[in-house]
Amino acid sequence: MSTDIGRGVKELLEAHGKPEREVYLDGENSVKVYKKVVEEMLPYFNEKAYGNPSITHKVGWESYEAFRDAASYIADKIGSENPQNLIFTHSGTEANNLAIKGFALANRKKGNKIVISDVEHLSIVFPAESLEKEGFEVVKIPVDREGFIDLEALETSVDKDTLLVSIIWVNHEIGTIEPMKEIARIAKEKNPNVIIHTDAADAFGKIPINVKDVGIDMMTLSSQKIGGPKGVGALYVRQGIKLASLIQGQVSIERIWPGVENMPLIMGFYAASKITFENFDENIRYLKKLRDKLIDGILDNVPYTLLNGPRGEKRAPDNVNISFLYCEGEALTVEFSMNGVYVSSGSACTSRVLEPSHVLLAIGREYEEAHGSLLMKVTLEHTEEDIDYVISVIPKAVERIRRISSIKPK
Amino acid sequence: MSTDIGRGVKELLEAHGKPEREVYLDGENSVKVYKKVVEEMLPYFNEKAYGNPSITHKVGWESYEAFRDAASYIADKIGSENPQNLIFTHSGTEANNLAIKGFALANRKKGNKIVISDVEHLSIVFPAESLEKEGFEVVKIPVDREGFIDLEALETSVDKDTLLVSIIWVNHEIGTIEPMKEIARIAKEKNPNVIIHTDAADAFGKIPINVKDVGIDMMTLSSQKIGGPKGVGALYVRQGIKLASLIQGQVSIERIWPGVENMPLIMGFYAASKITFENFDENIRYLKKLRDKLIDGILDNVPYTLLNGPRGEKRAPDNVNISFLYCEGEALTVEFSMNGVYVSSGSACTSRVLEPSHVLLAIGREYEEAHGSLLMKVTLEHTEEDIDYVISVIPKAVERIRRISSIKPK
Repeated sequence: MSTDIGRGVKELLEAHGKPEREVYLDGENSVKVYKKVVEEMLPYFNEKAYGNPSITHKVGWESYEAFRDAASYIADKIGSENPQNLIFTHSGTEANNLAIKGFALANRKKGNKIVISDVEHLSIVFPAESLEKEGFEVVKIPVDREGFIDLEALETSVDKDTLLVSIIWVNHEIGTIEPMKEIARIAKEKNPNVIIHTDAADAFGKIPINVKDVGIDMMTLSSQKIGGPKGVGALYVRQGIKLASLIQGQVSIERIWPGVENMPLIMGFYAASKITFENFDENIRYLKKLRDKLIDGILDNVPYTLLNGPRGEKRAPDNVNISFLYCEGEALTVEFSMNGVYVSSGSACTSRVLEPSHVLLAIGREYEEAHGSLLMKVTLEHTEEDIDYVISVIPKAVERIRRISSIKPK
Repeated sequence: MSTDIGRGVKELLEAHGKPEREVYLDGENSVKVYKKVVEEMLPYFNEKAYGNPSITHKVGWESYEAFRDAASYIADKIGSENPQNLIFTHSGTEANNLAIKGFALANRKKGNKIVISDVEHLSIVFPAESLEKEGFEVVKIPVDREGFIDLEALETSVDKDTLLVSIIWVNHEIGTIEPMKEIARIAKEKNPNVIIHTDAADAFGKIPINVKDVGIDMMTLSSQKIGGPKGVGALYVRQGIKLASLIQGQVSIERIWPGVENMPLIMGFYAASKITFENFDENIRYLKKLRDKLIDGILDNVPYTLLNGPRGEKRAPDNVNISFLYCEGEALTVEFSMNGVYVSSGSACTSRVLEPSHVLLAIGREYEEAHGSLLMKVTLEHTEEDIDYVISVIPKAVERIRRISSIKPK
């Protein structure tokens, strides 16, 4: 970025002022780590278990014990009895890359086709597309207007040459909960050897997960989607599956992803998991209450709005994605910010290039509908008062932007 | 690891007891983050600038400003006026992989030969070896008994087909400071188009660095080697150099390594850099004092010991690496631990597989000498009393291990 943009940012910050209340709803882009998580991870930077779990001294042994506790807890919550089936990475993105490229490159003799969907995260889309250059065939399954994948197209696409099926379990942008058990069943019926991967970054902690019941072979997890720190994710890999390493170096307990375990971040992931799962049903009910309050509050009070993704039980409990017609998304995020409401426009993943989200286009949104969409995620740290506040400021903010917008209702 | 090993660890911890003093010298394996760094990074988890620096709201703008401050400071300390020349990664390992594989794969039409040395970090060795399978030629330059690379062999090896020369600036295991300026000059004289990469993870903050004066094109940095948090590193890349991306996904300010900037860790890296550079000369003098006190204290008081790497000005100010003959390294680390002194044996990178370090073998150590070696790193948080304590307990600990060792002096 140029220095000019840098100067612009400084001026914007100075002009911003202090809003009456601040509500951060942009967890898709970057996490506001839960207070209790920060407290719990803090000692692991320099007070205890800050070592390499493989090394034979007290700090190493403490680290080994702490690491095993964390890995065992997380493994248990996805229905895997063996913590060694979790490969800790630096992010969900790295776990997705490892699942797609690491698996395809290590197993190319077993098949040549990779099946994904039209609504995957870019860390699935780009690695899959890069495999096309290496001679793999990549098929993308379309979705309906709520983002559910076309199960008939899936059935037609999976054949004897299919190596891997990777479908996002809970959509990161529009919250659609895909029927993973049915997806796995259909794929395995067509080819019992096919490997099922799911990007569960937005599913872990939001819906019940049991890899064995559902028939999952590999699964991506991310700490920051449940209020844990950024910088740690994991790939669940069923015993016996071979992966090629994408990054190479020193190996510690993990053999596939190099680098000594990052104890404070892993313990933060563990702390966030405990908060999430200790009162799981209650937490989910709470998130859904906030979510529906926010959705209804916007749809009822702001004209020309469309909810993206399904309603009710088939929607992620924390996801709110709404298209504000006759508005530019970027202009809305700035206007909301001035009111203390922090959201992102379009797909978090593509907002920087100001292109509409591929997920919104896949569910049939017009370019303009996609362009004026905002993504918001509620968390366990939000209160009902926070949501009331957001609903109270949004209508006027939208009105102001529509007044100056060049896009007008026909 | 099996459950049995897990049980063993728990018992070892219970049997450990509380030593009179505890001195953690195993920074090579995992960092004990400086207290002030933890304090300074803390607000970035959830109080300020915890957002995506690319997003247009207050938290994003705060993140942009903070990110630019951090990147500008670090860039300035390596003599690069442009912070955009730094690509932030999750580790030095990732930066090394990107430098070797990312560069080679994007520039293979320009040459086929890669020159490294016999004493590189495994995150250079393994990626280089993996390129051999892709048809590249990899030449490893030998070193002398103190670890200095053979400049004549370098001159002979670099030719018109040489794409990349990658030499570790300060050796992570034995502290040898390589003559980088001469290395770059020799290589560029043989081939003006050759690209010079250096793994400076152990050089940054330990010796003066100016990429332009020295003639460096790419350089690896790591936060954890200067008391910053684990989980963040960077690759300096001179303007105009093209790299292939190894991991793909969402891009934020950085386009090559995917993922939103990890603000708390980057701000921790920045805080550690400030501590390091604000009183640079004094800090280096202090580290050298502790280093030489520890080296002399061990060599003078423990028989059958050998220093690995050079002495004095050509040794990293924080590095102590000593072979204890007639001892097994692992047994020593356990015995030292019981006395509150935490060190690692052999190469941190290979200790898990209990093989002697390739660096120690490269300087001509016999298998047995390498096997009984311990690596210790002093930091700005260590006191002279800490070192006195280490020197006071080591001789007896070594004596105890030698008494029960099967390897005896001839």
